[in-house]
Amino acid sequence: MTKTALLAGEGLLPVAIAQSLAARGNAPTVIALGKASPLLESVAERILPVSQVSMDGIVRMIETEGCTQVILAGAVPKRWIFGGGPVDAKTLEWIRALPSRDDHALLGSIVGFLQSRGLEVVPYRLLIPEALAPEGTIAGRDPTEEEREEIRYGIGIARKIVPLSFGQALAVRAGAVVAVEAMEGTDEMIKRAGRIAAGGTVVKMMRPDQDERFDVPTVGPQTLQCMADAGLGCLAVEAGRTVILDRERFGQLAKDNAISVTGFVP
Amino acid sequence: MTKTALLAGEGLLPVAIAQSLAARGNAPTVIALGKASPLLESVAERILPVSQVSMDGIVRMIETEGCTQVILAGAVPKRWIFGGGPVDAKTLEWIRALPSRDDHALLGSIVGFLQSRGLEVVPYRLLIPEALAPEGTIAGRDPTEEEREEIRYGIGIARKIVPLSFGQALAVRAGAVVAVEAMEGTDEMIKRAGRIAAGGTVVKMMRPDQDERFDVPTVGPQTLQCMADAGLGCLAVEAGRTVILDRERFGQLAKDNAISVTGFVP
Repeated sequence: MTKTALLAGEGLLPVAIAQSLAARGNAPTVIALGKASPLLESVAERILPVSQVSMDGIVRMIETEGCTQVILAGAVPKRWIFGGGPVDAKTLEWIRALPSRDDHALLGSIVGFLQSRGLEVVPYRLLIPEALAPEGTIAGRDPTEEEREEIRYGIGIARKIVPLSFGQALAVRAGAVVAVEAMEGTDEMIKRAGRIAAGGTVVKMMRPDQDERFDVPTVGPQTLQCMADAGLGCLAVEAGRTVILDRERFGQLAKDNAISVTGFVP
Repeated sequence: MTKTALLAGEGLLPVAIAQSLAARGNAPTVIALGKASPLLESVAERILPVSQVSMDGIVRMIETEGCTQVILAGAVPKRWIFGGGPVDAKTLEWIRALPSRDDHALLGSIVGFLQSRGLEVVPYRLLIPEALAPEGTIAGRDPTEEEREEIRYGIGIARKIVPLSFGQALAVRAGAVVAVEAMEGTDEMIKRAGRIAAGGTVVKMMRPDQDERFDVPTVGPQTLQCMADAGLGCLAVEAGRTVILDRERFGQLAKDNAISVTGFVP
């Protein structure tokens, strides 16, 4: 049977994927980058923590484990690359030699590198179809008319900025952009928006040509908890191209905090 | 003689304008919004602090003072409008009824409102020509080749986002966008970039159709202090359309912190 390596960053997405693989009798060998979730322990064949990130080292680990397939999922802190972190010199040099280092280019280059070493990079999106956002109201209440207006405004701005590949989310309030995500990530952006504006809507979407096999926007209970703490009332995500993690807790948090979560087709 | 009212927000821009007016024997009557600089006291004819912002109230103040001209300058905290603040209900209602509330639309609407009440809104840009950024190295050292590359990359992204009118600045590091400014303002954005990336370049420019009579990007000693604290080494601003405040201290800070400040034509 084909053995699958899961190159897992932070967050719940690698957990959902590992669960799905384990349920099919193919528990993955997890190569854990950053603060990989402890929840992986119960669904992984093995967990191999990486203390020093090296592209060559990771390929060797995958090969040593006898895996021929690899899945990439979860967040890797950008400061590892741009702010100094546990990345080896050769890998940093490889990254610095890329013509562009935005999200889109980085991921594409990493996939290309793994493939060039004979590994099959497997899309995770269809492993967890039940986790993809549908169109319309997903959790909590329906959006108000004012929120629908904010969603429309936010989609208009997002359409222009997501192709620039520096972030996938922004916060909108009453016809103005409050905060725009770049390397700090969605949660930090939501907290900032809450410090500036009372209320508002978060819009999250991916660039049209983003590789939906390997890199889909993700929201989960933590997103809603950040929004509740920040006082933001509405979350709009791209239908069919957003993964919703821990759907049950997600739905409960939306309900408890009167947050409206909607799926839209841009 | 025509009496001039200066509707002054925060920062040093209103101070530079008041100094210029006072030097011509026309010290302005300052209507102070937010934390207006105490430096205004020595160069203003009078200072009238505003505790409750009301468009009608401000027009009445200007008229009562016998002013027929008004200059708008300085930053007004966005949370006043979007987060609750000392703004009266009628003014908030007027703002909410505007078709758009981004920076560009808000300023245009306020200028239009003042003009509709018979006031002349005077451009400040040509009052302080010596403060406008020239092309090329402005302060500190010349940019390195790596920084020139970051400036080019940043201008490319800025060209696409400044027309969306939610911010004028972004931080770039090694071919990727680290942080993008929206309502939090440039200084906060710089601090955030410093927490994520070690070093980098700040690019600041205005939208092509921005009203350069009333609304020009501003940098000053505080910008450089934020950059020094955050470890960012290069600042690129739009030549001819950026005001540099307190040029002497600005130059000294750039030198002391080995920051490169460059003016570019986009």
